[in-house]
Amino acid sequence: MNEYTKSKLNRVKRGANRAIYDVEKINTILDAGFLCYVGYIYDGKPITIPMAYCRKGDKVYIHGSTANRMLLSILESEETSITVVHLDGLVLARSGLHHSVNYRSVTLFGSLKKIEKDSDKTDILEWIVNQMVPNHWDSLRPMYQKELDRTLVVEMTIETASAKVRDVGVADEPEDYELPIWAGIVPIKQIAEYPIPDKGKPENMEIPKHIIDYYEANK
Amino acid sequence: MNEYTKSKLNRVKRGANRAIYDVEKINTILDAGFLCYVGYIYDGKPITIPMAYCRKGDKVYIHGSTANRMLLSILESEETSITVVHLDGLVLARSGLHHSVNYRSVTLFGSLKKIEKDSDKTDILEWIVNQMVPNHWDSLRPMYQKELDRTLVVEMTIETASAKVRDVGVADEPEDYELPIWAGIVPIKQIAEYPIPDKGKPENMEIPKHIIDYYEANK
Repeated sequence: MNEYTKSKLNRVKRGANRAIYDVEKINTILDAGFLCYVGYIYDGKPITIPMAYCRKGDKVYIHGSTANRMLLSILESEETSITVVHLDGLVLARSGLHHSVNYRSVTLFGSLKKIEKDSDKTDILEWIVNQMVPNHWDSLRPMYQKELDRTLVVEMTIETASAKVRDVGVADEPEDYELPIWAGIVPIKQIAEYPIPDKGKPENMEIPKHIIDYYEANK
Repeated sequence: MNEYTKSKLNRVKRGANRAIYDVEKINTILDAGFLCYVGYIYDGKPITIPMAYCRKGDKVYIHGSTANRMLLSILESEETSITVVHLDGLVLARSGLHHSVNYRSVTLFGSLKKIEKDSDKTDILEWIVNQMVPNHWDSLRPMYQKELDRTLVVEMTIETASAKVRDVGVADEPEDYELPIWAGIVPIKQIAEYPIPDKGKPENMEIPKHIIDYYEANK
């Protein structure tokens, strides 16, 4: 599948010119982050919960405690969506109306499954940690069985999705370009600052190369 | 009111030790951002939409087109929540389980109202623009009536809310502190880069002081 089929659920209504259904472009946006927003319904209200995630193929994984109210609720109802947003800039126009932001966002819908096998859970936790900081998992101590036992891993098979991307300049009314008003883009990005060692041994250890690499790539 | 009353809706279950119900602390988190996540239910599914917002007192305002499906839906059902999240750091522990992030997040619930009066709408759009870039509105051309006519402004009166904040170091198992594994915090922040002028007059204009001030405060 190269493109998600447009349906009632994923068809972008507002700003349809910015809509993307291409699977590869959507995956690129997903792979650029590690924090997603999971929607669930509690007491009739839609609530948004930030969570770490990883993507492998057409699956997205999230995890939490086996007592996590939200995860248990979406596993039961299968009524959820997952949203990822990267903010790339402020669009400062000549008029209030045309103020906007540049961004890349994705919303995913799909079927949910609880991961049961310990070896699968371990693999997925490795992917989640490595989606946050590449190559990080191998530097950690292995999971204890009791830790795996109290971790709930949820798999979403992406069934339909859409992205919206705005990555252009200011779009003002034609007549406004004559006004003596400053307009432009203020680029925004998320950066990492230099790693701060925990107390104890890390204070006297070299920071591992993969963490320095992460800092260099994101500073 | 100094603190939101804990109810079924806003009581934090997971990580209750990080929960905050203090009105002033919640307002401080709200005032540190301008992008919120609005939850709504479409076709039975909870969907999360990123939107600009501003806060004034116990009100939060969002806006969009008068044809915005999500805004019309939440005005009718009043079933929504608004979430704001600031990511402050990666918490790299010695074990996978204790990996976390430092963050400040708020979830708001309340009653909704459509703003009808043009003068009120104009005031609120000014607050929304200025929550993004302080003191910015006065540099723009005034709104046209037809622009106001096609803008829907929605007010939420915050009735209950909760925040979660994690702002501490690594919290590993006691025995893990002896392991020769690097652990620590990688601070994360959202920054602004130098403003890029739009084509035309802005290329030959001085960047207004309030925009340079924004850049300097966020670079």
